[in-house]
Parts: sequence; C-alpha cells; structure tokens
Amino acid sequence: MTQGWTLAELATATATTVRGNAERRVQAVAPFEQAQAADISYVRDPKYARLLPSSQAGALILTPDMAEAYQGDALLSHNPYLSYARLVNFMHPLQRPEPGVHPTAVLADDVQLGAAVAIGPQAVIEAGAVLEEGVVVGAGCYIGADVCIGANSFLYPNVTLAAATELGQRAIIHSGTVLGSDGFGFVPDATGWYKIPQVGRVCVGDDVEIGANTSIDRAAMGETYLGNGVKLDNLIHIAHNVHIGDHTVIAACTGIAGSARIGQHCQISGMCSIAGHLTIADHVTLTGTSFVINSITQPGVYSSGIPIEEHALWRKNTVRVRQLDKLTRRINALEKQLADLKNSSL
Amino acid sequence: MTQGWTLAELATATATTVRGNAERRVQAVAPFEQAQAADISYVRDPKYARLLPSSQAGALILTPDMAEAYQGDALLSHNPYLSYARLVNFMHPLQRPEPGVHPTAVLADDVQLGAAVAIGPQAVIEAGAVLEEGVVVGAGCYIGADVCIGANSFLYPNVTLAAATELGQRAIIHSGTVLGSDGFGFVPDATGWYKIPQVGRVCVGDDVEIGANTSIDRAAMGETYLGNGVKLDNLIHIAHNVHIGDHTVIAACTGIAGSARIGQHCQISGMCSIAGHLTIADHVTLTGTSFVINSITQPGVYSSGIPIEEHALWRKNTVRVRQLDKLTRRINALEKQLADLKNSSL
Amino acid sequence: MTQGWTLAELATATATTVRGNAERRVQAVAPFEQAQAADISYVRDPKYARLLPSSQAGALILTPDMAEAYQGDALLSHNPYLSYARLVNFMHPLQRPEPGVHPTAVLADDVQLGAAVAIGPQAVIEAGAVLEEGVVVGAGCYIGADVCIGANSFLYPNVTLAAATELGQRAIIHSGTVLGSDGFGFVPDATGWYKIPQVGRVCVGDDVEIGANTSIDRAAMGETYLGNGVKLDNLIHIAHNVHIGDHTVIAACTGIAGSARIGQHCQISGMCSIAGHLTIADHVTLTGTSFVINSITQPGVYSSGIPIEEHALWRKNTVRVRQLDKLTRRINALEKQLADLKNSSL
Repeated sequence: MTQGWTLAELATATATTVRGNAERRVQAVAPFEQAQAADISYVRDPKYARLLPSSQAGALILTPDMAEAYQGDALLSHNPYLSYARLVNFMHPLQRPEPGVHPTAVLADDVQLGAAVAIGPQAVIEAGAVLEEGVVVGAGCYIGADVCIGANSFLYPNVTLAAATELGQRAIIHSGTVLGSDGFGFVPDATGWYKIPQVGRVCVGDDVEIGANTSIDRAAMGETYLGNGVKLDNLIHIAHNVHIGDHTVIAACTGIAGSARIGQHCQISGMCSIAGHLTIADHVTLTGTSFVINSITQPGVYSSGIPIEEHALWRKNTVRVRQLDKLTRRINALEKQLADLKNSSL
Repeated sequence: MTQGWTLAELATATATTVRGNAERRVQAVAPFEQAQAADISYVRDPKYARLLPSSQAGALILTPDMAEAYQGDALLSHNPYLSYARLVNFMHPLQRPEPGVHPTAVLADDVQLGAAVAIGPQAVIEAGAVLEEGVVVGAGCYIGADVCIGANSFLYPNVTLAAATELGQRAIIHSGTVLGSDGFGFVPDATGWYKIPQVGRVCVGDDVEIGANTSIDRAAMGETYLGNGVKLDNLIHIAHNVHIGDHTVIAACTGIAGSARIGQHCQISGMCSIAGHLTIADHVTLTGTSFVINSITQPGVYSSGIPIEEHALWRKNTVRVRQLDKLTRRINALEKQLADLKNSSL
Repeated sequence: MTQGWTLAELATATATTVRGNAERRVQAVAPFEQAQAADISYVRDPKYARLLPSSQAGALILTPDMAEAYQGDALLSHNPYLSYARLVNFMHPLQRPEPGVHPTAVLADDVQLGAAVAIGPQAVIEAGAVLEEGVVVGAGCYIGADVCIGANSFLYPNVTLAAATELGQRAIIHSGTVLGSDGFGFVPDATGWYKIPQVGRVCVGDDVEIGANTSIDRAAMGETYLGNGVKLDNLIHIAHNVHIGDHTVIAACTGIAGSARIGQHCQISGMCSIAGHLTIADHVTLTGTSFVINSITQPGVYSSGIPIEEHALWRKNTVRVRQLDKLTRRINALEKQLADLKNSSL
C-alpha cells in the first residue's frame, strides 16, 4: 500500500478547503458506493445528500451545503465534480513514457523532433514531419509526410496521421483513429465513378481529444477543421471540409457529412447523423440519434429518434407512421363534416 | 483434392448418426444450393424440406423428420444447424500459428509467457503483461502494460489492448479492435472541458469474441465488464463502466453509453443506441436500430425505427410526425364535439 | 512558387477547350470563393452563374452557357465538375512511393511480388500472398496468407487484409480498414453460443475504393463480394456473404447485415441500416439513416428517419407515435359515428 496523501495535500492540489482532519490520509479515489476508509470520493448532486450518512469513505468532496449533512472529513468545493476530476488528475497523472526514439521505429532523415519527444516501438514517421517538444507517439503509429504535431500531444498506439495533418498542442488521440484519409468524393462519368483527388488536409486546434477508431477525412481542397478544446468520442465519422467550432463535444458513433459547419460549445450526443453543407449555431445540444438535415440557426436542445416499445405494438404503430399523411387528411375531413353538420343543425 | 472424410467420421465428430452409406466420402462443406456430389450441406428449417429432392449434395445434415423426404445419404441430428457448426469446426479447425516469438516483436523484459504462446511479427508487449498458455498475438498487435490474457485466447493482427486490460480464456479478438481506450469524461470548467482521467480498466470473461474495429473504453473508476460467452460484432462502441451480462450477443454498429447495465442472454441487433445509466433485464431482444432511453425491466422483444418508404411519401409523412401532438388534440376535440352533438340531438 | 500550367496544357489534360488567353498560367486549384489570380476554379451549377462577375480566380471551368455571363479566361466543358476532377487528378497525381521492400517489412519466403511493388516499413506479408505489379502496401499493413492484390492497388498504412482476401486492380484502401474478419455467426447450444467457423473469404472487383476504419467480414462459406467500381466510405460494416453490385456507392456509418444482396449503381447514404437476407434492386437511392427491412424490387428513391425538432416538442410527439395505432382506431370510430349521426339526421 502506498503512503497516500493527506487531505491537506489534496486540498492544495484541487483548490478546495479541508473540513475536519487535514492530516487524514487516503490512498485512492473510489465510487461513492464502494469507497472505504482508505478512499476519497465525491457527491456531485445535492439530491444524493440523503445517502451521506451511510458513506464508508475516508473523505468526501462536497459542497459546503451538502457538508452540513455529513459528519466525516471533507474537501469543500463549489463544484465537487470538477474538484474530483482535478483530484484524479493529481493522483493519476498521465504516464508519459521516457523520452527517446525506440530502435525499431523508422524515421525519415529530416524528421524534426523537439525536446523530450518519445517515439514508441514500430512507429513510422515520414519525411518532413515536425514533432514539437514533449510529443509522445505510441507503438505502431504512422505519422505521414509533413505532419506537424504540437507540443505535449499524446498519440496512443496504432494511430494514423496521414500526410500534411496538423495537430495543435496537448492533443490526445486514442488507438485506431485515422486523421487525413481521403474524403469521399466522386463524379459520375461514362463508366462509373471518377475519383476527385482529395488535396486538402486535416487541421486540429489545441487541447483536442479524439477517441478510438474515429476517422477524420482530409478536405477536398482546404481544410477539415477541429477548433480548440474539441472533444470527440469513439467511432465518429467527420467528412471532408467539416468545420467544428471550439469546445464542441461529440459522443460516439455520430457521423457528420461533408462541409457541415458545427458551431462552438455544441454538445452532440451519440449516433447522431448530420447532413452535409449545413450550419449548426453555437450552443446547440443534440440528444442521442438526432438526424439533422437542415441548418440550425438558434441555440437550444433538439431531438429526434423514437424510443423502443414492445415489438408487437411497434409493428402496429410503424404501419401507421406510413399512413400519417392519410390519417391527417381524414382528420381534416372529419372536422369539415362535423362543422357542416353543426351548421345544418342550427 | 484431399481425401476428405467418411460420413462415419463426420458423424462421430458431430455426435450425429449416419443414415445410408457411412463410407461415402465428402471433401467440403457448401451452401445447400451450391453443394455437389463431393460436398456435404445442411437444411436448417423444415420449411425447406420441399427442396430436398432437388439437392445435388453428396450428403445432408437433416432432422429425422426431414430425412423422410430425402433419398440420399444423411447425418441425422435434432439440431442440424448446430451439427453443421460442429462439422465446419471439425473440417476447418482454427489455424494456430507455430508457437514462438517473432524476432521483430518487441517484448518488455518482464513479460510472462505461458507454454506454446505465439507472438507475431511487429507486435509490441509492454512491461508486466501476462500471456497464459496457448495465447496467440497477431502481427502488429499492441499489448499494454500489465495486461492479462487468458489461456488459448487468439488476437488477430493489429488489435490494441491498452494497459491493465484483462481478457479471459479462449477470447477471439478481430483486427482493428481497441480495448481500454479512455472513457469519454469531461467536466465543464471556466475555459472549456476539463478531462476526467479514466483510471479504471476493461475486464472480459471467458469465451468472448469481439469483431473488427470495435472499441471498448476503460472505466472511469472500476471496470467496464463483459461477461462469459459475450459475443460482439464489428464497429461497436462500449462506453466506460458498461456491464454486459453473460452470453449476451450484440450485432454491428451498436453503441452503448456509459454505465449502462445489460443483462444476460440478451440479443441486441445492429445499429441500436442504448443510453447511459440504465438497466436492461436478462433475455431482452432488441431489433435493429432500437433506441433505448429508459431501463427495460421485463424480458421480451422491443423495437423502434421506422422502415423506409418512397421518398415522396416520406416527405409528407415526416412532416406529420412533427404535428402528431397537435393531431392528437384535434382528435380529442372532434370526439368531444361529436359527443356534445349527439347529446344535444337526443 | 512553381511555374504552374498554361490553360492550354490544362485543356489538353482535361479534354476541355480554352476560351480566352491559352497562355495564362495558374498555380493551383481553389474553391470558387477563395480562388485568386493564380488559381483555377469551377462552377458546377448554373444557379451560381450570378456570382461569376465577382470571381477573383485566374480562370474558371464553365459550361459554354455559363461562360456567356463571364468575362475572364475559361475552360469550357459540358460537365465542369467532372472536368474539375480530371484537373485535380492531373495537377495532383496520386503519389506512389518508390518501388522496393522496406528492410523492416516481414515477408514470407514464397510471397510473389510483381514489378515495381512498394512495401512500406513494418508491413507483414504472409505465405502465399500474390501482389501484382505496381501494388503499394503502406506502413504497418498486414497481408494475410494467400491474399491476392491486383495490379496498381494502393493500401494506405495500417490496413489489414485477412487470409485469402482477393482484391482487384486499382483498389484504394484507406487506413484502419479490415477485410476478411470473421462473420458474426453463432448457434445456441446447451451452454451459450457455439461459433460457426467462417470459412469463406472476401472478394473485391476492380477500381474499388474503401474508406478508413471500415470492416468487411469474410463469408461463412463462399464469398462476401464487392463488384467493380464500388466505392465505400468510412466506418461501414459489411457482414458475411453480402453481395454489392458494380458501381454502387455507400456513404459512411452504414451497416449491411448478412447475405443482403445490393444491386448495381445504387447510392446508399450515410448511417443506413440494411437487414440481412434481402435484395435491393439496381439503381436504388437510399437517403440518410434509411432503415431497410424488406427487399426493394423497384429502382427509385427511398427514405426513413425523422429529422430533429425542438426537444420539448419532440417529447410530446414521440409519446404520440407510440399511440398511433390507438389514434387511428379513434379516427375510425369517429368516422363511423359521424356517418351514423348523418344517417340518423336525414
């Protein structure tokens, strides 16, 4: 068992204040229900305040209000969830491998490496690539020609950055993700589909995180662009020439078609489908499975998708959806007939 | 041409009985419509019994009932589909590469390898990893620090298991799949989104198969868990802290959000979307494109998703869906007016 | 700055004719709104003709009709979009790496390489593979046993072709894509799910392009087949034994279940779900998020999916969808009552 940390140390690290025994030591962070005497946990929502007396945790991060219902040692915060995130970050800092180039990595002669760069085994880095200081390239990554990676960016193993991709500082890219694959562009010709060479690139701002097995296509011309602070989850498709504004977050399995322009501070849930050549305003929230085929000009929450019902009922209702226009016209007719009947009986 | 197998041999291998010439030899298994004299095939469903006389197959796997309508040689089984699966398994056993570590693989000094482990070219295995006997690691796989892989598990090329992932015995993982990428967790702070370090891991039971390009995130804290006998298809997203019960199968392109708890023996079809922090009971079947936003407490079959119609009709009906609440209130009003009219005309 | 090309040279390369100064030089291609004096651009649609006088481009590709509204130098084409594609192809031909096998690549002894094949670093090619002339295998690719790759095919880095996959000529496969993973086939047995070995393969015609992180499963028996000229985007799932006809294009995030048979010249948009064991006719267009559960026998455009609305309205309407069958029966009753009332008041 490690020696752990005193609450005083953790308060300093998280910009919180201790209530109770500042010398109490905790070893780990744990979920509220599982936390024991050596653990610290947190309560995010006042609605769980009733559970506080049952906690076995050594300490809790609480708002001052919530702390009134709790006898134990606490770190006081006006945003316990954020303080918890800072705590975990302090207790479990991102492990950066030792700087250096693994002997099995293959680097072109003119690759430029900043200070303290770490290149993992079997990685390949092509001519003209520039990796600023502190960049980590995981095992098996492929870094194409003329790629630029900003300082302290971290690529997990088996990431592919195609030629000319530009990543900002402090990017985190998870395994299996591909940046810079060709956009999907073809013109019909006499015999089939003629490929439009995709001669643009992918350009990503600072503090961007991209999950696993996501793909971001290079632009046909110009740039596919992700702004500063953008966060993408797993298995997302970003087509050519898409523009995503700063601090927008996108959950897994969402697809965004070509040249769509997404605003800043949007929150796009999982499995959304966004058509191409449209604009979404800043501060738009889309709930899960939203299907967007027109521009959204006003901030707000938008939804589509029909939740499940029992299969037998679904079979009946789904038939009716296809009759909806007819049903509406039957309602129109009923209203007219009823009005006529009322008039005639006056 | 190989010598093939006698029906007697195949009956022993599949726990079936021969009807007809036990010494007949077949060389291969083939689909019913294509099977020729050197092939063996099967009929799964009695509704196809009428096709039996037209078969060109050298032999068929049939139920005793179906066999009455067939003159040729047969293997009799009460479950021809399962017997067919056993037959293919016997005729085409999984090819395991020769044990040994390829000279281009990169292994940390303290990696523990059981007997008869095979490590392919360009694979990378980090410190503390434990691979039990008979494990196969394909070319280009990445096995992170402290990963444990149970006996006889088989990783196809280019699989990524991030640090601390635990796989049970006899797992099969297909190419491009990533286990242990960070869950998607951020807290808003003054400037954007603050990352919550994901300090849990992925834990997978025995006899699990996972398709290609699937991603399974590590837990924020604790475990993302797949039970024994779980089967996942391609391009599936499993978020952090999801729990999937034993023997549940999930088809391609489905996404499951964080902390969802899926029961045992569920059958989840393709392109389903399951929201986070909900529970699905055992023995639930979801049909394709099901959208689940609340817990399902009872076993049964559930559905959502509206099948296609002709585009012009869809345009009309889809407008009406957005008027449905209004339409319902118009029906309410009609019912009331009609009742009033009837009363007044009494 | 490069010397660029004269309009005369570009006209020859694109089979267009110059109107104006054939000796004018341009350096690059650019989008219409951004094109400056050193750039050439195009206008695809006559509806943008009103913008022509504002263009800053050095030259434009236009139809003869559109060119009447434009004073500058032009390349005249009856299909400016196709001429633009040819122009980009001429100015930016696909960069093929120098032929040769990188010393870190691992090739089985009996691999057959045609003339001018290029194998990138860390690639692995198993026994029996045949690569015809001009094939490019990117860094980190895995080529399984007995794979055949047709002449001049181009695999970007980190592609996986499992054993026995057959690719035609001039294929382009983007990073992270997997061909030949096992189909998803299991039979229930006494204890759970018994795997059906997938002993077929993937067979791909000529002139096929496949995007990033797509997965195409091998057949249970026989072939999963993509016809000539098929184009697949990113993150697509093609299940075992699917057959896709010549020149069909499929956009990102679409999933096609087992044994579906898709016609020729189909256009399938993004995030579509196509059930298994059905047939789609030639020349079918599916719009985004289409959900297909029955065969489509006639060419035409088909759609499903409900676009977003404001969240509060969606909550109301989505409840009503689940009452649709009841609502319909209420309309039926109203119609009957109204008819009765009319009859009785006669």
